Amino acid sequence: VRIAVDAMGGDQGPQVVVEGALQAVGRGPSGLELILVGREEEIRRALGGAEVPSVRVVHASEVIGMSEAPAAAVRKKKDSSIAVGTRLVKQGQADGFVSAGNTGAVVASSLVNMGRLAGVSRPAIATLWPSTTGGAVVLDVGANYECVPKNLVQFAVMGTVYARYHLGVERPRVGLLNIGEERSKGNDLVRESYSLLEAESAINFVGNVEGRDVFNGAADVVVCDGFVGNVILKFSESIFSFLSHMVRDEIRRGVVAKAGALLMRGAFSNVRAQLDYAEYGGAPLLGVNGVTIISHGKSSERAIKNAILAAARTVTEQVNGHIEASFKGPVGHVAEVS
Amino acid sequence: VRIAVDAMGGDQGPQVVVEGALQAVGRGPSGLELILVGREEEIRRALGGAEVPSVRVVHASEVIGMSEAPAAAVRKKKDSSIAVGTRLVKQGQADGFVSAGNTGAVVASSLVNMGRLAGVSRPAIATLWPSTTGGAVVLDVGANYECVPKNLVQFAVMGTVYARYHLGVERPRVGLLNIGEERSKGNDLVRESYSLLEAESAINFVGNVEGRDVFNGAADVVVCDGFVGNVILKFSESIFSFLSHMVRDEIRRGVVAKAGALLMRGAFSNVRAQLDYAEYGGAPLLGVNGVTIISHGKSSERAIKNAILAAARTVTEQVNGHIEASFKGPVGHVAEVS
Repeated sequence: VRIAVDAMGGDQGPQVVVEGALQAVGRGPSGLELILVGREEEIRRALGGAEVPSVRVVHASEVIGMSEAPAAAVRKKKDSSIAVGTRLVKQGQADGFVSAGNTGAVVASSLVNMGRLAGVSRPAIATLWPSTTGGAVVLDVGANYECVPKNLVQFAVMGTVYARYHLGVERPRVGLLNIGEERSKGNDLVRESYSLLEAESAINFVGNVEGRDVFNGAADVVVCDGFVGNVILKFSESIFSFLSHMVRDEIRRGVVAKAGALLMRGAFSNVRAQLDYAEYGGAPLLGVNGVTIISHGKSSERAIKNAILAAARTVTEQVNGHIEASFKGPVGHVAEVS
Repeated sequence: VRIAVDAMGGDQGPQVVVEGALQAVGRGPSGLELILVGREEEIRRALGGAEVPSVRVVHASEVIGMSEAPAAAVRKKKDSSIAVGTRLVKQGQADGFVSAGNTGAVVASSLVNMGRLAGVSRPAIATLWPSTTGGAVVLDVGANYECVPKNLVQFAVMGTVYARYHLGVERPRVGLLNIGEERSKGNDLVRESYSLLEAESAINFVGNVEGRDVFNGAADVVVCDGFVGNVILKFSESIFSFLSHMVRDEIRRGVVAKAGALLMRGAFSNVRAQLDYAEYGGAPLLGVNGVTIISHGKSSERAIKNAILAAARTVTEQVNGHIEASFKGPVGHVAEVS
């Protein structure tokens, strides 16, 4: 399995990415080969002269910044590490691509260079959340800010395949994120999606779920548009910072003994790590004709390592083949490419 | 100040509401009069024969259930406690209305019976969230699941007035809830709203804020459509249940000593109470021509008491008058009724 890694991605520069890659090589499956993509000189410096047989470097002269407008950046910077990395997949020189860089640019470049799987009109970013029943796949969390009902149905099908492989649930329960349980609830998008989801035979639709259900195991797959998904993803990140702040406050006010507070902070950081999609091994962009794993800009070495291993697993488990097979399934499938 | 209270509202029946009302009378401002609305016999039973001079009962024969479809229920049940309570405000027999009942029905009935303030096309439910800088007003959290840009501008103006009175900030900073800071980010609704918010002179617009900014004090007023707002409101409720679950889990696994866990749970419930809009005294439905305070279905006696006191304060502070004045302000106001 050959994984291209965006060495320039992430807030902390090549050093962290390169270290993560070296850890992955050390602990990954046998036969794992990595291609570090980016400014060769900087990558060589980060490698510190180390020559690892299963790691090679492919030069890319440009870098897309974290806050650049994705579409324009992808159009202009044809030799960015993101463009080169996704092209390596297109050309069959790599089986997957991992980047902690500009999410929008990774999505756009993956679409341009890899294309879409048969049956998919819009790829989606899927994240694995902890829940009281072991975990839930939530998608889309940021690839599509404007969705039509058909998109949500396709997300449900892709999320079902992903949950089957990553949660080990044979018939994952799919919930539609809404503001109430009744089918009449919500905005136009979710009300129209409800009927389509009911009619889709490739999934096990259990109806609407609410914000409070993400963590309580009411569904194995939670489907939403990328705007709502991204808001709750970032919202969840903030809650733990806020809790830490509260705890500091309680210490200052003498409400809680320091020992108890330290225990609390330990528990918070456990939960926070579980919530952090980088720690989870990155978020797959499902629906592109290739494997793309998106890591958090703040990724640690460990997060990069996990993302690379997740990419390798997604390749060997043939997740894409299973997604295409789902769309080609028996009569009843309403999803189609527009 | 005369406040009508929906005695039939909430998951726990009249007893809790009546107890909360009696607490409010005991601790409220002098001159506070309460009108308990609902099935007289049940209310009298809950009162246990107590005769309180400043509390009277107005009979309403019907009850709208928590899961009834709001529009149909309001149309059919003309003698529900919600309909009668909002009519008391319309008729000038009460200055405000408090209900822990069916939120959609309270919104619809308030609109029908009280009408809207000049300048407001859509009322919004505002909630006060804790933040590292003291608090943030988030609106809309559930009155409107389908919004146009103009609605969000009006929410911003109303939220500004509310924040001024409830957070004591003279020029509250208004943020637009989005998935990135740049003005080009997001879906059509937020991108179009951005320009309108910039042009609105009645507010102090500071640009986009993300999900993570709700708690970190980046804005005093956070504006969003009611679908997104409701999802994050319910999502935040679930996080603390999930944390409790995690803590139980850690105890079972022996990771954390029981003493530490108990301290943690204490801190969680503090934070949870701060997040619970019922504990905060209920959420005002801003923009109707009257004062309506919506309490959580799970409201405790204390929450009901706080909601009644919040309603009284909203009346005496003339929040509605200040909202109307904002909409009648200097040139530059883009908000208008459709």
